[in-house]
Amino acid sequence: MTRQIRLVQMGVGTVGRAVIRLVMANRERWRQQCGLEIQYVVLLDTQGGVIDRNGLSDDEMRVALTAKEAGQSVAEAPLGEQTNAANALQPLSDLHDVVVIDCASGDGTAAAHLLALRQGWSCVLSNKAPLALDQQRHYQLHEAGGARLWYEATVGAGLPIISTLRSLLTAGDAVHEITACASGTLGYITSAMMTGTPYSAAVRQAHQLGYTEPDPRDDLSGLDVARKALILARTFGRRIDLGDISVEPLMPTLDSSLGVEEFLANLATADAAFAARVSHAQRAEATLKYIATIPAEGAVTVQLREVPTASQAGSLSGPENIFVFRTREYADNPLTIIGPGAGPAVTAMGVVGDVLQAAAQ
Amino acid sequence: MTRQIRLVQMGVGTVGRAVIRLVMANRERWRQQCGLEIQYVVLLDTQGGVIDRNGLSDDEMRVALTAKEAGQSVAEAPLGEQTNAANALQPLSDLHDVVVIDCASGDGTAAAHLLALRQGWSCVLSNKAPLALDQQRHYQLHEAGGARLWYEATVGAGLPIISTLRSLLTAGDAVHEITACASGTLGYITSAMMTGTPYSAAVRQAHQLGYTEPDPRDDLSGLDVARKALILARTFGRRIDLGDISVEPLMPTLDSSLGVEEFLANLATADAAFAARVSHAQRAEATLKYIATIPAEGAVTVQLREVPTASQAGSLSGPENIFVFRTREYADNPLTIIGPGAGPAVTAMGVVGDVLQAAAQ
Repeated sequence: MTRQIRLVQMGVGTVGRAVIRLVMANRERWRQQCGLEIQYVVLLDTQGGVIDRNGLSDDEMRVALTAKEAGQSVAEAPLGEQTNAANALQPLSDLHDVVVIDCASGDGTAAAHLLALRQGWSCVLSNKAPLALDQQRHYQLHEAGGARLWYEATVGAGLPIISTLRSLLTAGDAVHEITACASGTLGYITSAMMTGTPYSAAVRQAHQLGYTEPDPRDDLSGLDVARKALILARTFGRRIDLGDISVEPLMPTLDSSLGVEEFLANLATADAAFAARVSHAQRAEATLKYIATIPAEGAVTVQLREVPTASQAGSLSGPENIFVFRTREYADNPLTIIGPGAGPAVTAMGVVGDVLQAAAQ
Repeated sequence: MTRQIRLVQMGVGTVGRAVIRLVMANRERWRQQCGLEIQYVVLLDTQGGVIDRNGLSDDEMRVALTAKEAGQSVAEAPLGEQTNAANALQPLSDLHDVVVIDCASGDGTAAAHLLALRQGWSCVLSNKAPLALDQQRHYQLHEAGGARLWYEATVGAGLPIISTLRSLLTAGDAVHEITACASGTLGYITSAMMTGTPYSAAVRQAHQLGYTEPDPRDDLSGLDVARKALILARTFGRRIDLGDISVEPLMPTLDSSLGVEEFLANLATADAAFAARVSHAQRAEATLKYIATIPAEGAVTVQLREVPTASQAGSLSGPENIFVFRTREYADNPLTIIGPGAGPAVTAMGVVGDVLQAAAQ
């Protein structure tokens, strides 16, 4: 007894391609072990897509992947066409068991999620932006089918963060506070600073290693962490918007019109201030970490904080994430999850885990 | 649209009673939020049970709980009858959507699991013993319905250990090695030893605090940890029996016919040897932990080991558990879960989480 699942994927960047490879490598096993026949029907990027409601063949998928890897859009691949999500999804409206995967970036895909959920389809996101829109959009999504909205990979990549939080809540537990180092990039930078690397050099290293976004301000602004904090807070029922979160950027205030190279060149102006904070932490047998604090009530904050070197968070190395759940049942000793919270392969595992859960619903 | 789930529970000890209370406190919410109508039909202990295929009322449940808390058997409660699992389950064989919960101890419930799975029912265990039987029994269970066999609470209580391992495997990852401090009791004892408490005094403290089983040898023998190691190993596909695991008991070899008090009185004979190991660890800036090591291939071991004080495992406090998953995708930085891995309330959360997953299948 097999069940046919059709995949629509928006976003074919590094994470999106890792998802496709993982699906193609495992689908035969899922067919045998879980009775799931998984098939792509749409692959979209911002320019267009390849679409076949009867299922894209492995060859067609590979051709589209090759085009993306060569820097082309999916629309430029053989069989590709210029289109957008609305036009691509509309002709599929009679299909059941469709899972829409969003590995894009930016909130341009939000309308497609609403459409998908209202049709009874499931949505699986690694893209945080559509989940960080205002509360009205948030409740629209949830009314359209919150139980079919999956987003493990938006927080902690492949680490079981959202699933753990949801399990606790479903079993009747109540969150007191979640604290997290939820950015591998900022973890790398703060770790480097604590071992003596000046702030500006640490940022430049992270940029050169590809740990930051192409424009490192996207990480240093704290927006990425704030979005994760928002997603966690909303998951346990807080009514909150991105603007309600108090965010301390991990960078000096500079002219926002600067290009990336100019921005990097100006960072040394902040070195002395960060060095002073490093010294202060060291004197207190503490270490600096960029920490999101999400209490059950009161201010949600994202800021550079001192944590004891001997604590679990203090012993994190480099790009690792940590999520600490203090709840009614885990009040004295919290439930803590540690591991790499970024990277295409583990993010793809988070996405695929959700796809399989959605398929089993 | 509601779905009716019937619960059969074997074992009404501290964990069993916590499960019942959690179910009774949350079932109205599950009805509203998940469309699940959850009702007990059988409550069994080793003497007998209360049984009503049309559902036990809340009052009937409370009466049975009260009897157990007063030290009586369920059979002695009003409406209770002397029976065994086979006789209690047989008249239910025409029912669907039955979940058999095993919060008993010992492997006497194994036959009931096989019966239940073969009828298409689900089984949820906090009881490790039936899963630690020989491989033939293991494969019998899995052939009868491995996908309907849930056992999150057998390892790490409410911590998401089994679910995380299963998710990694389903998404296509491969385990390299799992290491774990999987006994809160032995964690408490080793932590106390590292802060200067003699071994015998640490054991006595743990016994007085109720952290050990009534007979502390059940913990100190390492059998409890070995069973957890076996369950983890089998979950990721190793063909292994309990006897294949190399176990170092955390106690001296004493006449096994000693009573508990005599046993405790004789423990001081081991103090000097353990003190020497504590000193050795301290000189190496390490700490002693009782660690299960489960590699993809080769010997599975359960033993007292030195780990660096500065490591995640080294910074564990008292009764906390740690589980470290090194896999193909988490090779450089492992996926680590830390938290209290024992206690009736969190164990009940693990059981109930599984019941809800089983119900959603």
